Amino acid sequence: MKKITVGMIGFGTVGTGVLKLLRGNAAVIRERLGAAITVKKIADLDIRRARGIRVAPAVLTTDAKTVTDDPSIDVVVELIGGLEPARTLLRRAIANGKQVVTANKALLAAHGMELLKAAHGKGVDIGFEGSVAGGIPIIRVIKEGLVANRFSRILGILNGTANYILTKMTNDGGNFQDILREAQECGYAERNPSLDIEGTDTAHKLAILISMAYGTVVTFERIYTEGISHIEPLDIEFTRELGYNIKLLAIAREINGQIEARVHPTLIPDDHLLSRVDGTYNAVFIDGDAVGPNMYYGKGAGMMPTASAVVSDIIDLSRNMLRGAGQRVPPFSYQQEFIKKIIIKNIREVVTRYYLRFSVLDRPGVLSKISGILGRHGISIHSVIQKGRQTRGTVSIFLLTHQAREAAVRKALDEINRLSVAQAKTRLIRIEDDL
Amino acid sequence: MKKITVGMIGFGTVGTGVLKLLRGNAAVIRERLGAAITVKKIADLDIRRARGIRVAPAVLTTDAKTVTDDPSIDVVVELIGGLEPARTLLRRAIANGKQVVTANKALLAAHGMELLKAAHGKGVDIGFEGSVAGGIPIIRVIKEGLVANRFSRILGILNGTANYILTKMTNDGGNFQDILREAQECGYAERNPSLDIEGTDTAHKLAILISMAYGTVVTFERIYTEGISHIEPLDIEFTRELGYNIKLLAIAREINGQIEARVHPTLIPDDHLLSRVDGTYNAVFIDGDAVGPNMYYGKGAGMMPTASAVVSDIIDLSRNMLRGAGQRVPPFSYQQEFIKKIIIKNIREVVTRYYLRFSVLDRPGVLSKISGILGRHGISIHSVIQKGRQTRGTVSIFLLTHQAREAAVRKALDEINRLSVAQAKTRLIRIEDDL
Repeated sequence: MKKITVGMIGFGTVGTGVLKLLRGNAAVIRERLGAAITVKKIADLDIRRARGIRVAPAVLTTDAKTVTDDPSIDVVVELIGGLEPARTLLRRAIANGKQVVTANKALLAAHGMELLKAAHGKGVDIGFEGSVAGGIPIIRVIKEGLVANRFSRILGILNGTANYILTKMTNDGGNFQDILREAQECGYAERNPSLDIEGTDTAHKLAILISMAYGTVVTFERIYTEGISHIEPLDIEFTRELGYNIKLLAIAREINGQIEARVHPTLIPDDHLLSRVDGTYNAVFIDGDAVGPNMYYGKGAGMMPTASAVVSDIIDLSRNMLRGAGQRVPPFSYQQEFIKKIIIKNIREVVTRYYLRFSVLDRPGVLSKISGILGRHGISIHSVIQKGRQTRGTVSIFLLTHQAREAAVRKALDEINRLSVAQAKTRLIRIEDDL
Repeated sequence: MKKITVGMIGFGTVGTGVLKLLRGNAAVIRERLGAAITVKKIADLDIRRARGIRVAPAVLTTDAKTVTDDPSIDVVVELIGGLEPARTLLRRAIANGKQVVTANKALLAAHGMELLKAAHGKGVDIGFEGSVAGGIPIIRVIKEGLVANRFSRILGILNGTANYILTKMTNDGGNFQDILREAQECGYAERNPSLDIEGTDTAHKLAILISMAYGTVVTFERIYTEGISHIEPLDIEFTRELGYNIKLLAIAREINGQIEARVHPTLIPDDHLLSRVDGTYNAVFIDGDAVGPNMYYGKGAGMMPTASAVVSDIIDLSRNMLRGAGQRVPPFSYQQEFIKKIIIKNIREVVTRYYLRFSVLDRPGVLSKISGILGRHGISIHSVIQKGRQTRGTVSIFLLTHQAREAAVRKALDEINRLSVAQAKTRLIRIEDDL
């Protein structure tokens, strides 16, 4: 039986999962691939820690270059995350003619194009199924399963930590900070949770999805990003009453050759499938012009789901090697020569519906003042409710708009926030309901 | 630019969709594939009918052999459906060394192994993404995206017509026959709907999914199959009250090396994602040992969704051809030499929960008699409700069991049905709730 030799850089949670999976499912993998996969070298700074899996001492090394430079290694798997030294090591592996696999979304979202060009130049492949939505094979779906489609829209719940917190706030009540602390204690949130809760991690993943769906290279800095830390129980409660759920959503939309790309908390109708994606689960809802709306759902992170994606890439590249068929599918879905610059719309140009919550003094005429200002900026009101909950004479006014341009909404809110009756900054949450 | 030449057999709804898609999205297909796809020949018995798309007369033929035998054609796409002449034509195309694509689930479910062996022998590939779940790329997901997993369970809503009727009965009330007639008038159901409503079409698709997931070849006759025509508004209403939805479900499960394979109406908890798959939509819920539960959702049929799948296959095979990499992924997921016989459990051996509806005379002691018989067969009762709706002295008793063996349940029902108070055959619907 033929043999594929793998070298791994990074022996943390996902690395351990990859080794477990390659061993535990060795038989089915062999029967499907027609070759055996062996892990020859694993590099990590810490090669002493117990990981619950036996590894021969000769396999372990603290020097990643013994992985990238070993001539007998076919596939180099990078699982250390972060920009450096991951970037340098991947470039070195590519320069050595290795097939490479990575789950490093931050690196891809920042330097994806550089890595693709390097791989293209050397005629090797780069697999990154594990970088978006954990075990859901969404990369392969966009590049292969739905390859015949143009995509009008992609909506993604792409961060398990943020979704866990919002689900918990929705189902059990409680405020953001308490639930975050609890999630950290349970290991659902990192000690430093900012990448997750501020939306940056979601933006990394959206950058990768957009690049593949539209044949462009978007770095994540160009994506408007807003996190969930400002969501209050009041917002959750009230949107529930209105028949909505709040989700941290990654949104991409093609409109007349321009791309809308944004990450922010979003109101989704309660009866939509995406509303049912709870806890640490992820989902991608994608509209293809031929296929119509599709949804892909599964665990977005964790040792074994991510390992499932990484091993699927190892097998994919092995298949290419066994047939001598490198670069069969271009890494970012489009052939290198057709990757183009696309204009990313400024968030101020986005037209959508809004949920607004005003904290104002409970005085006669306040609502008329607010609606007057909105009206002058061309923002028409869908519905408005003033809630009786008063704290020191302050009242909350909840308002849903019809479609409006973000720039106009911001101008109107600036004016409203300066009113003498305004007691706090107006809360704004965008709505996605033309589902 | 390189060129791939396609010949099509069958110019009905899907064939028309394939041509529309190859033309309408020719630019993105070219940019992704790096080659242009042209349709050189289309065979159909009727080449005069208007199809809303212009085709040069020289492209059309009534003789399918001019497609299978044309030396300049790379890929033959079979879209006529049914067993013959589809089988003979596909075999002829394979014998001529063509790559082949088909969406013919009936043919695959009956003669899949024969076609695979023929393709294997000639070193060509056979694509059949369009045969299961329309535009959802579930074949590719099982064969590639989730390739590292063993699958403990597959649950599928795989027939849009049946799901449309059940959704309509659930949301708007009404009985099966009226809604079927309405669906036929709207074109959601065929003139002869039996394949759809009796579950046969679903069994075809489940046979294909099982073959790929477990490395075996299952013909659909081995799958226990029960349709939805006996579902009454009473069942819908009552299961709703209990927090369930009725769906026509394809179920596969691996237990100790044996496979459970069955198609029947099934109670699914209301809060499960599968319960939200409404109308003509399809979904596949699949449990992988590494990836955990995943769900794939989209349109299960129709011109353009199916065309999306067929064209994805054409592109896949084109990629193989452009790289000279035939048989890169085995058609039924496992390498030919590892395809094995697996025991399909008899339905009588299945252990699950049951919803039972008894129609009995409204007499004292009836419930005790029924529960006594169930108890003697080792079937324990989860809950029971007697509904006040009486028709000529007949009352309905609704009962949910705990886990029980089908053989025992059948024996018990035989006894109960023979009681002098029994006014109609007991209705049995299986429950799937360990989701």
